[in-house]
Amino acid sequence: MLSGVTRLRVRYAETDQMGVVYYANYFVWFEVARAELLREHGWSYREMEESGVSLPVISAQCDYQRPARYDDEIEIRTTGVLKSPIRMEFSYEVFAASQTGLVATGTTSHAAVDRSGRPCRLPARIREVFV
Amino acid sequence: MLSGVTRLRVRYAETDQMGVVYYANYFVWFEVARAELLREHGWSYREMEESGVSLPVISAQCDYQRPARYDDEIEIRTTGVLKSPIRMEFSYEVFAASQTGLVATGTTSHAAVDRSGRPCRLPARIREVFV
Amino acid sequence: MLSGVTRLRVRYAETDQMGVVYYANYFVWFEVARAELLREHGWSYREMEESGVSLPVISAQCDYQRPARYDDEIEIRTTGVLKSPIRMEFSYEVFAASQTGLVATGTTSHAAVDRSGRPCRLPARIREVFV
Amino acid sequence: MLSGVTRLRVRYAETDQMGVVYYANYFVWFEVARAELLREHGWSYREMEESGVSLPVISAQCDYQRPARYDDEIEIRTTGVLKSPIRMEFSYEVFAASQTGLVATGTTSHAAVDRSGRPCRLPARIREVFV
Repeated sequence: MLSGVTRLRVRYAETDQMGVVYYANYFVWFEVARAELLREHGWSYREMEESGVSLPVISAQCDYQRPARYDDEIEIRTTGVLKSPIRMEFSYEVFAASQTGLVATGTTSHAAVDRSGRPCRLPARIREVFV
Repeated sequence: MLSGVTRLRVRYAETDQMGVVYYANYFVWFEVARAELLREHGWSYREMEESGVSLPVISAQCDYQRPARYDDEIEIRTTGVLKSPIRMEFSYEVFAASQTGLVATGTTSHAAVDRSGRPCRLPARIREVFV
Repeated sequence: MLSGVTRLRVRYAETDQMGVVYYANYFVWFEVARAELLREHGWSYREMEESGVSLPVISAQCDYQRPARYDDEIEIRTTGVLKSPIRMEFSYEVFAASQTGLVATGTTSHAAVDRSGRPCRLPARIREVFV
Repeated sequence: MLSGVTRLRVRYAETDQMGVVYYANYFVWFEVARAELLREHGWSYREMEESGVSLPVISAQCDYQRPARYDDEIEIRTTGVLKSPIRMEFSYEVFAASQTGLVATGTTSHAAVDRSGRPCRLPARIREVFV
């Protein structure tokens, strides 16, 4: 299991007319968080894609507890686990400087695919990161 | 239970470098689909917000079966149910003209809140739409 | 010169906490409008890209006169001109059902490039559309 | 005149199927850059809005010289000038770690408005920042 912390600041573009972060944007933050988690462990998602393996999302889910607001400093605590040689799962806990307690929690599941879009084993080098 | 069909076309902005629709954008489509479903049943989400009731998402989920691509004509079949006087749930089935079979399925849950952000009963006029 | 009209409806995702459409989203609408303009004249942008020619934006500009709001029906009047065998320019006028007068005007310039990213002549079939 | 530097990393969500950053997203970066510029000079855009003054964009423009790509480290050099007691203008130069030379340049113009949407003078405290 991998874990790490990502920080970002809410952009105006990410708010909606309710005055809070639009719900779909949490999934963009999840993407930022898992890429950063992997980068910290020596694995660049960009390099993996360049080597012919990509990692599309096969399911995604988010529970929203409290609103995040413009300019909030956001902290995302991410964990990643290898579910099989071709599947990974990430979990996310989102906190905002302006809020006490969790803002949101979520998960994403991913399956490795090769250039032709067929499921494939994750490269050994990447699987080893998770041991 | 309400049900309806929404059609839209994939925008270039909605694709990513994998050449398919970026996963978070399905949640934007879900928002378009549920607003249109309600509008067809005589209920404008804009009017409801202007009357002081909004309907934030409390949870959202999507399973991705097949990729949707740029310029695809997308069809979303949406159903909405009232779970309680303050909660609603929508389910979505996404099809793409270029694909046989489902592209994605998802659900979103919503709780009505008043101007101060406190949970409140949905207006009677809206609850009646669901009977 | 080509001209045409595109209609769309403002999405909640496109608003920001000022209660109006976020300024960058007009450029997404411009993309929708020019793709639709070309499609109406028998030219699919998707097909062109599949044939190896893409049309990246080299400059973009927008003037904002009045705010567009959530759920507004938007009308975009688009014109396209061929500036040279490799360059095209589109102009956009944006109207909203809720507003009297122009909401915004903009332009985008594009240069045709081949698969290797080098400037190339637009296919004859496409240049003919503009005559 | 104010000036400063903002750094960010390209998100997957910001790419499109051409494999580069989608053109409208540069305007989102410009928003991040000007908010950060002002924050560094002791002025929070969030606080200003809370005090009743907002700063909508009245025109925006971008020239694209080279593509930025996923995971690129982006540097934005921003300058801001007061054009009048109610108008500000920002200029942006965008660089990417993967590219030699400018990736893009742009400008945005802004007019201060009060809660009712009428043009108003920028607060004295803010105008002083620019002296």
